[in-house]
Parts: sequence; C-alpha cells; structure tokens
Amino acid sequence: MTGTLSSKHPDLECVTRDDIAAMDPRERVNFVNSLPGFKSLILVGTRNGAGLPNLSIISTAIHLGSDPPLLGMICRPAKVERHTYENIKETGTYTFNHVHESFYPQAHQTSARYPREISEFTSTGLTEFHHPEVTAPFVAEANLRIALKLVETLPVQANGVTLLVGEVIHVFYPTAIRERDGYLDLGEAGTIAGAGLDAYYRANRLDRLSYAKPDRPLTSLERGIGDPEASPPIR
Amino acid sequence: MTGTLSSKHPDLECVTRDDIAAMDPRERVNFVNSLPGFKSLILVGTRNGAGLPNLSIISTAIHLGSDPPLLGMICRPAKVERHTYENIKETGTYTFNHVHESFYPQAHQTSARYPREISEFTSTGLTEFHHPEVTAPFVAEANLRIALKLVETLPVQANGVTLLVGEVIHVFYPTAIRERDGYLDLGEAGTIAGAGLDAYYRANRLDRLSYAKPDRPLTSLERGIGDPEASPPIR
Repeated sequence: MTGTLSSKHPDLECVTRDDIAAMDPRERVNFVNSLPGFKSLILVGTRNGAGLPNLSIISTAIHLGSDPPLLGMICRPAKVERHTYENIKETGTYTFNHVHESFYPQAHQTSARYPREISEFTSTGLTEFHHPEVTAPFVAEANLRIALKLVETLPVQANGVTLLVGEVIHVFYPTAIRERDGYLDLGEAGTIAGAGLDAYYRANRLDRLSYAKPDRPLTSLERGIGDPEASPPIR
Repeated sequence: MTGTLSSKHPDLECVTRDDIAAMDPRERVNFVNSLPGFKSLILVGTRNGAGLPNLSIISTAIHLGSDPPLLGMICRPAKVERHTYENIKETGTYTFNHVHESFYPQAHQTSARYPREISEFTSTGLTEFHHPEVTAPFVAEANLRIALKLVETLPVQANGVTLLVGEVIHVFYPTAIRERDGYLDLGEAGTIAGAGLDAYYRANRLDRLSYAKPDRPLTSLERGIGDPEASPPIR
C-alpha cells in the first residue's frame, strides 16, 4: 500500500466488543492501541529517593488545562511503568521530554523491562541533563523538556490504571520554534507522533486555523501572526 | 523556517511557572497546549434525549487499556464541550470518529459555540451515519468510527475537568489498513494529528519497531509480519 485512503471509504469492516474479546491477546493490544488516533510520544524522566535515574516512554500524555498549566499521563502500576510511578510518588517530581526523530529507537528501547538498578540513560545511550532546581533528570537530546510537580492521582476503577495530574514548573524549548502568539511549532522542533504500540510518524504541518465562530468562515493563520480578535482563550 | 531542528539544539529558552502565569491568556493557551506533544484528533458524536445530534472536536482521546477495550477523553463541563458531556451523561453512548485530511476545516469548525438546537453536522456539511445498534451518530466521512459506552467519570480536583472512561462497543475501519498483527495503519487511513489549539499535521510513517527487550537489539517490523515471539502483549 503506498497511498492514503480517501475519506468515505466504501469498504468498512465492523468489529464488535465480542470480536475484540475473542482476539488473540497480541492482536488485541495492537488493534485497540490503534483506536485513539495519533499519540504524543514523551520520555518521562524520574529519580528514586536514592538518586537513581529512570527513563520510560509513554503515549498517554494529555493537556488538562492552561491556567494553572496541567498535563496528565496514565500509569499502569503493575506494568513496565512501575518504576516511573513509584519514583513520582516518592519524589513528587518528573520530566516530560519530547521524542525527536533522531532518537526514537532509543526512546522505544526504554520500554524494555530493565532491572531497577539499571539506568535507561546508560543502557540506551541518551544523555542526562540536570537543572539545579529540578530533582528529576531531563533528556539532553530532547528539544522540548518540561519539569512537572505531581498534584493529584486519580485511580480508574474500570481497569486499575491511574491518571497522574502534574503542574508545569519549567519549560525548555528552542527559541526559533515559538510563534508570536505563543504556539510552539512541534513539527519544526522535530517532535514525532506515535500510533499503536510501536509505530513512529513524522508530522508535516498542513495549516493553523482561526478561532471558529458560528457566523464567520475560518481563515488560515499566517505563521505567528493570527488574528488576535479571532482567537480568544478557550481553554 | 523551512527545516526541522536538530536534536540537542544549543539555544534553549527557559520559561517558569511564574512566567506562564504572567502570560497574556491567549498566549498562555497556545503555549501550554503545545506542551503535551502531538494530539489525537477525534470528532465526538452524541445525541440528546430528544434525538438532536451534536458533533465536537476533541484532542484529549487516550488509550486506557485493551482488555477490556477502554478509551478516555477529557471534558471541560463549563466550556464548549458542554453539550457533548451532557448528551453522554444522558444517553451513555457516544462515537469517536478519526479526523481525515479531507475534512479537517469542517472538524475545526465544530468547535464554534453553536446553540444547542443547531446540529454541527448540518452547519459544517458533514454527514451523519447511523447504525441500528448505536444511538449516537457517526461521521460518514470518517474512515475510522468507534462506538463507546460510558463506564466511569472521574472528576479532576485540580481544575474541574472530568475524565470520561468509555468501553469500545463497535469499530468500523477500512479493510485495507489492518495489518496482520492487528495494527491499523492510521497514516494510510488518512487520519491526521493535531498540535496546540489549532494546528493540523499529516503523518508519514517512519517505522514500526520490535518489542523491546533488555538483551536484544530492536528490529524494524515488516508490514504486518513482525516477530510474534518478540511481541508479547504488554498492555
């Protein structure tokens, strides 16, 4: 397959909840992980109480609000993210580091089940970056690096995962990617997107669109300019 | 700017929590919404108790688990997603429809604050697709369409948003995008990715990588083949 399917594709399969339950477990994780669409790819940096660093890739980072600036992530306490979760609970601090196209295989490799005493920085060849006010390690190869403070944990009863709510404390980013209205151009930064469990995608910008109103047509926003009147804060 | 920045970019700005608090509100929403990385773009279809349809774009869809198949989304009860949230609470049913490159301006336009009695299908020109077993409307132009049943709502104390947990009941997708191991190729499907509040990106696949283990090198997965022994279920 080489092209991209047109919209309103005529030939759709239908899979039901029972079909999903009957799938081979490997097939099911691949299939269901494809359903939410493209995913954020973030390396989470933490340190335990003894100072040992840990690095783990997640694909469940989400925006929760901008004032205060809050980001969420999902942890599966019994799974590979266990060290990350325990370190965050222990220290209250963690970092989000955007996965750049140049090191996505190393980012993927952090999902291997290394023993607790092994640093994923050492084993994957990624470099620790330290900031005097932040206990948790950043990834020096990441163009966007964010320090967070844990403010809330919400257990999901339906399957035992946990939503961690973090407040943004520091943000590091290349000056050149910040547009005049505050938007950071992630494509220009080399940040990539994920899909499923193991698929990696380069992102190419199609457009930015003006703030939508019922009674006026959308316009394409020029880079960093926009129309201030047309873009009131909505979140 | 025309290229993509290299990794380990030498010229990083540092912005603190206080700097973010001092930003103009418009700048702050653009800036903070850029931080979680690339986002899923989903049109949520709902219907109220009287049968009136509603359609709303979200960028907070996340995978919560595959067995049972659970997807999450964030609702801001006081904001534009209010009709969506009220309809989901009223009927318990909703649909996720992947945004395709051919209709992202219409998808963006659903974020306008239409009165409750106006259908975003009518106002944006998107087409309702009905399934006899699903109350909520799907988007006929979407290649991937998912019906969900609400199973849990989790209020986030820190800022008053709510995590909705939905179980996957039906999935419609083009036969051609399903790879042999269950992965659905979202790039081939024409699904796009978002960033910030209003930026839209086409995704081009770089690779799929084998299941990571501490003691063996990663391999590139051939399309739909993979190495079953190397890919045990991890979520």
